[in-house]
Amino acid sequence: MKAEVINPFLEATVSVLKTMASVEPNPGKPYIKKGVSAIGDVSGVVGISGDTEGSLCITFTRGCILFIISRMLGEEQKEINDEVKDAVGELTNMISGDSRRRLEEMGHHFLGAIPSVISGQNHEIKHITKGPILSIPFSTQAGPFTVEVCFK
Amino acid sequence: MKAEVINPFLEATVSVLKTMASVEPNPGKPYIKKGVSAIGDVSGVVGISGDTEGSLCITFTRGCILFIISRMLGEEQKEINDEVKDAVGELTNMISGDSRRRLEEMGHHFLGAIPSVISGQNHEIKHITKGPILSIPFSTQAGPFTVEVCFK
Repeated sequence: MKAEVINPFLEATVSVLKTMASVEPNPGKPYIKKGVSAIGDVSGVVGISGDTEGSLCITFTRGCILFIISRMLGEEQKEINDEVKDAVGELTNMISGDSRRRLEEMGHHFLGAIPSVISGQNHEIKHITKGPILSIPFSTQAGPFTVEVCFK
Repeated sequence: MKAEVINPFLEATVSVLKTMASVEPNPGKPYIKKGVSAIGDVSGVVGISGDTEGSLCITFTRGCILFIISRMLGEEQKEINDEVKDAVGELTNMISGDSRRRLEEMGHHFLGAIPSVISGQNHEIKHITKGPILSIPFSTQAGPFTVEVCFK
C-alpha cells in the first residue's frame, strides 16, 4: 500500500466527526511508524480485508472521547459507560465505511469487519504486521486522538 | 450464523495451543451472550469478513497467557513484554486461519484481517453487533481464557 491511501482515512475521520458530533478535529502530519503501540483510554478497532488485509484503529484519551460523545448524543457524558462505548463503535463503523467508500473511488476494494471497542485506562494496542503503520495524530479542544491504519 | 459454527473455533483453539505451546486447554460449554464484554489482561482481536462480517477475540488473564507463551517460546516469561504480545498476535492469527480453514470445509468463505493485541490490566472488549456473541470459556492449569466469536 502506498502512503497516499492515508488520505481517505484522514478525510473520513474529519467528515464523520463533523457530521455526527459537530466536532472539527485538527489533523497533524501523518507519519509512518514501526512496531510502536497506541496508548489510550478508549479505542475502536476494526479489521479490513479485500485487496489486502489490514486494520483501522482509533484511540482516544478519556477527556477527548467524553467531549466528542457528549456532542454526538447532545447530553453531557461524564463516564465511559455502555452508551459511550456503543457510540465509539458507531463512529468506528462509520469512519471505516466512509474510508472504504473513498478507497473504492481510488480503485481499491475492501470489506469491513465488526468493530470492537476497548476500554481501560492506558491500554495499549499493538498491530501484528510486518508492514508499516500509518499514524495520523488529531487534536481537538478537549485533547488528542490518533487514527492508525496498517496493512499487511 | 448458526451456533454450529462455534465448533471450528473451539477445535482450532485447542489444536493451535496444543501444536504451538504443548498446552491442552479444557473447553467449557459454549454459550450465547448479548452485549456483555470480555474482561482480561491481554487479548488478541481479529476481524473476519466474507460471507458475513464478524470478529474473533481471545481474552487471557495475565497468569494464563504468561504460562502459554512460556511454553510456546521455551523460556519463562515473567511480564507482558513485546515478545509476549507478538506471540499472542501469532496465536490469534493461527487460530483465526485454522478456524477459517475449518469453516471453508463447511462451505463458508471468510477472509481474515490483521490482528491487534490489546494489553492493560482489566481492559474490557465490547463487540459492536446486534447479533449474538458466541462465548467459549477455556481453562488451563494456569487459569482461564475466553474465545468470543461474533457475526453481524
